[in-house]
Amino acid sequence: MELTQDPQLYRMRHSLAHVLAQAMQRYRPGALLGFGPPVDDGFYYDFILPEPISEDDLPALTKLMEEIVKERQEFHYEDLPAEEALARLRAMGEPHKEEYCRELIEKQGLETIRFYRNGPFVDMCEGPHLEHTGQLPKGCFKLHSIAGAYWRGDERNVQMTRVYGWCFKDRKQLRAYEKAREEAKKRDHRKLGKELDIYVIDAEHVGKGLPLWLPAGAVLCDELEKLAREWEFQEGYERVRTPHLTRGTLYRQSGHLDLYRESMFPGMHLPDEGGERPEDAYYLKPMNCPHHHRVFAARPRSYRDLPLRLAEYGTVYRYERSGTLQGLTRVRGMCMNDAHIYITEDQITSEFVRVMELHRRYYELFGLSGYHMRLSLWDPDDPKGKEKYVDDPENWQKTEDLVRRAMQEVGLPFVEVKGEAAFYGPKIDVQLKTVGLQEFTISTNQLDFAVPPRMGLKYVAPDGSEQVPYCIHRAPLGTHERFVSFLIEHYGGAFPTWLAPVQVRLLPIAERHLDYADKVCAALRADFVRAEVDRSSERFGKKIALGRTRKIPVLLVIGDDEVAQEAVTVNRYGIKEQRTLPVEAFRAQLAREIRARAHAKTWEDIDRLD
Amino acid sequence: MELTQDPQLYRMRHSLAHVLAQAMQRYRPGALLGFGPPVDDGFYYDFILPEPISEDDLPALTKLMEEIVKERQEFHYEDLPAEEALARLRAMGEPHKEEYCRELIEKQGLETIRFYRNGPFVDMCEGPHLEHTGQLPKGCFKLHSIAGAYWRGDERNVQMTRVYGWCFKDRKQLRAYEKAREEAKKRDHRKLGKELDIYVIDAEHVGKGLPLWLPAGAVLCDELEKLAREWEFQEGYERVRTPHLTRGTLYRQSGHLDLYRESMFPGMHLPDEGGERPEDAYYLKPMNCPHHHRVFAARPRSYRDLPLRLAEYGTVYRYERSGTLQGLTRVRGMCMNDAHIYITEDQITSEFVRVMELHRRYYELFGLSGYHMRLSLWDPDDPKGKEKYVDDPENWQKTEDLVRRAMQEVGLPFVEVKGEAAFYGPKIDVQLKTVGLQEFTISTNQLDFAVPPRMGLKYVAPDGSEQVPYCIHRAPLGTHERFVSFLIEHYGGAFPTWLAPVQVRLLPIAERHLDYADKVCAALRADFVRAEVDRSSERFGKKIALGRTRKIPVLLVIGDDEVAQEAVTVNRYGIKEQRTLPVEAFRAQLAREIRARAHAKTWEDIDRLD
Repeated sequence: MELTQDPQLYRMRHSLAHVLAQAMQRYRPGALLGFGPPVDDGFYYDFILPEPISEDDLPALTKLMEEIVKERQEFHYEDLPAEEALARLRAMGEPHKEEYCRELIEKQGLETIRFYRNGPFVDMCEGPHLEHTGQLPKGCFKLHSIAGAYWRGDERNVQMTRVYGWCFKDRKQLRAYEKAREEAKKRDHRKLGKELDIYVIDAEHVGKGLPLWLPAGAVLCDELEKLAREWEFQEGYERVRTPHLTRGTLYRQSGHLDLYRESMFPGMHLPDEGGERPEDAYYLKPMNCPHHHRVFAARPRSYRDLPLRLAEYGTVYRYERSGTLQGLTRVRGMCMNDAHIYITEDQITSEFVRVMELHRRYYELFGLSGYHMRLSLWDPDDPKGKEKYVDDPENWQKTEDLVRRAMQEVGLPFVEVKGEAAFYGPKIDVQLKTVGLQEFTISTNQLDFAVPPRMGLKYVAPDGSEQVPYCIHRAPLGTHERFVSFLIEHYGGAFPTWLAPVQVRLLPIAERHLDYADKVCAALRADFVRAEVDRSSERFGKKIALGRTRKIPVLLVIGDDEVAQEAVTVNRYGIKEQRTLPVEAFRAQLAREIRARAHAKTWEDIDRLD
Repeated sequence: MELTQDPQLYRMRHSLAHVLAQAMQRYRPGALLGFGPPVDDGFYYDFILPEPISEDDLPALTKLMEEIVKERQEFHYEDLPAEEALARLRAMGEPHKEEYCRELIEKQGLETIRFYRNGPFVDMCEGPHLEHTGQLPKGCFKLHSIAGAYWRGDERNVQMTRVYGWCFKDRKQLRAYEKAREEAKKRDHRKLGKELDIYVIDAEHVGKGLPLWLPAGAVLCDELEKLAREWEFQEGYERVRTPHLTRGTLYRQSGHLDLYRESMFPGMHLPDEGGERPEDAYYLKPMNCPHHHRVFAARPRSYRDLPLRLAEYGTVYRYERSGTLQGLTRVRGMCMNDAHIYITEDQITSEFVRVMELHRRYYELFGLSGYHMRLSLWDPDDPKGKEKYVDDPENWQKTEDLVRRAMQEVGLPFVEVKGEAAFYGPKIDVQLKTVGLQEFTISTNQLDFAVPPRMGLKYVAPDGSEQVPYCIHRAPLGTHERFVSFLIEHYGGAFPTWLAPVQVRLLPIAERHLDYADKVCAALRADFVRAEVDRSSERFGKKIALGRTRKIPVLLVIGDDEVAQEAVTVNRYGIKEQRTLPVEAFRAQLAREIRARAHAKTWEDIDRLD
């Protein structure tokens, strides 16, 4: 669940799921139930229907739901002993609920099971709910779509029909959300990615979840890497390059073969190396850490070498089920803004602060303000804690305190959440809302006290003793795939000049202006500006419109006056007023804007850079 | 054989192989024979020995050879009919020679077999040889090493003992070659790669043939990529990024699954995608071309888009047998300076010229002069030609003519070699001699008329018809692995400043100079200069010596005078005279040197950049 979810909203959404199920059982008598939880922006319920429905059925279902709301049905619960609960579900004829109930009893050891009733509808459910359905304001919800979903998310199970609804506190908030979703649709990175030639997924030939970056997309990735390279140089990182493959031996040692194998591509056994054990095969790396640990281990290390900051934009491959893949946000190959920082215990706080400052610098550059930070902690009370977390309470305590202190020092607000830590230590996740108001983890910064000793990493301390370093895993820019998908939507495809795939397009008004346009274009390209000349025979208005559609930040109008004055008329995306400038002045201005990586939205923004 | 090998030298080397075999049969009676050919720098012979030998036996063997030389044994040959030849080899008790003889008769259809005799020694051999062993000048050869070698290079066969000898025209030329080899040993990229922390191969954990680039090596790769990015931008290339994986479907279409599968890593079948045919699996890419072809095919293309130049420093993976792997020169993963240029027929010559000009520009930058170019042609008379080459005589004729014309236009000398073309078209290979005088293919430029139609690539011509583009495959900088291994040896690890992993090291004479050194270092790093301060407590002479050992181009001496004058004393690698300069003047000078990517060997070289 979303962290910030309001308890009342949670009750509304949860209650609406029950209202939806009741309505469905009226609409399609005999409908069987799956799960029906509240979600970030509303609720859903899964059904097995005796006769399929389509989105055309949603108005009728909505009407039935509104009737139930009007009935002011009260919510009441009762707790039944295990056997009685099973008997009731059997009597209700709900085999999937019964299966889940049996699991709760047998695997999780529950002794009683709670049932909620509102009106004629009964559901096995933990709650909480509203007092009665009349507390749902008119117009606070909307059924918006239907999708297929496997029972318990497992494709080997029966497929159910999932009905989704949005729900907010009132009609006004729902409308605001709908508007944001509409804007998000226009900015959807899959739509803009195609229109702006950023990437393509060639599922038939190249495979699913393996985007090909077209030239415009490669520019975005290259500019992000250039940015990271510069800032990491300033912060004292050293870059490394590691192969995309490793022998299983490394993953036996790192624990990947035990814990992570299902998310990895299958192993490749080489005929001339023999061996049939998993560790004898070669694997695509799903993470860069073990390779970086081997770089650390490749030389004897002293405390004088620490902090040792090893950075790599490394491509990793993960086996995601094809059904879960989506555009650039869920892929099988991803290039990560990775680094591993090896530190002594004394350096934890200062280095963590330094990393968070770097995060903040990135967010400022991209104009991100709506993010919040989550300190993800160990959960000492989790009954499965020993499988999920390294069993070392003392180190958990210590590192959590250090991270908390670092966050207070850097002055970034954060919330703490138990049970969301990494296996090997506490972490900061940076969450933000997309244009479509979806929650999105954009970066992560993790403190690892557990893997370095397991990998045998050591350094010589000032007293000559051997010590184990701590390790920070950080990826402020996440992966190219996710970050670019986010940026496309964030900027709606209208990138700031430094990022834009084409930065300048020259539009000669008539053919006689072409030579001059070529000359100016060559001068710009000599400055490594991504400039091009529109050589088409379209009429001028069309040329302007095409430049707009491509969201090119700067269009240069070239006519008789410009040729005569050795000037260009600058027409900037999103700015109405055009300005005519001498070519040299324009070159200097553009260079300043690009160097500053400015996001100029007005002429004043640009003047300020002078 | 080496193209440029002198016929007389060839006879000398070939005759020495026979002399070696005769000597061995005296030294180890009962020694059985394998092959014994001349090679680039001498000769070798393979034996099965009744009792092993070591390098300690080489002087005694050499003495026996010298005796045979003195005997002025004449070389004579006779041609025996097939059956007689087999009978003779059986009588000689040479089972491996007999096996090979049978193959020549049965598979290659030879009707007579030639035997050469000198003194008491007889060998099945095509020749040619000297007239007599007395034509071998004193001191023209030297046995230099022993190695194991499988019969016919196949690890399933018996292992033989190979004895290697060098041979040159006279003692003086042999000495010169030996000296070059000694220098090469000092510069061996495996030795310097370790001393300068450039890369490490962690065969146990990460795997064989998969180098990890340490920070110094990552700098070299990054600088090469930056160079390529800049020059390719100037030449109108567009960069793309493609995954390291592909579905087999693409390789079925491209022909890789038929022709290249043995050199590929094994396929990975994904559980959720099913299928058991080779094309249903996912593969690591051994080449970038098919992915780039899919980028071409991702959008409708018009003649207006051509030439379309798609560039990528793409990492490819090839399954090389572990026994053949060697340092960075023979690896399993390699990052290639790749590009594919799609052109119309009319553009072939001009674009090929342009690519060769780019090659030349690179070679000038790196100070390479001893290269020669080889135009590798189709061999219409090769009996296996239909398997090795696309069967399209007309296109071979046409493209070979066009490439020849382009080479003449660009004015680069080249030799033509039949039977060395790629499967899909003629190519230019650029060969050079390493410091150790080994032949080395550094780059390639290929014209492909066959794959684009097979991959269904098309563009719309001015008349509206659909046409198939030609494709140029070029990699002037080869792969990072091979090119860096070459550069390490070429520069002996003393890289020009723009390439050097550490460009400047500041050496404070006493602790009181540390603050100033830090300040100057920070100023240099703000210019993105890779500068560092030697903070060790070593005495000053040792600091200088350590800087030399790391072959850092610029050491800055910082003492009282420098602090007082806001200056630095510049001590450059390989230049005796030190110069003291104001900090700002030094910064400007260094920036000019780096920007020009100069290889400055004297102060005059540096002054000239001002």
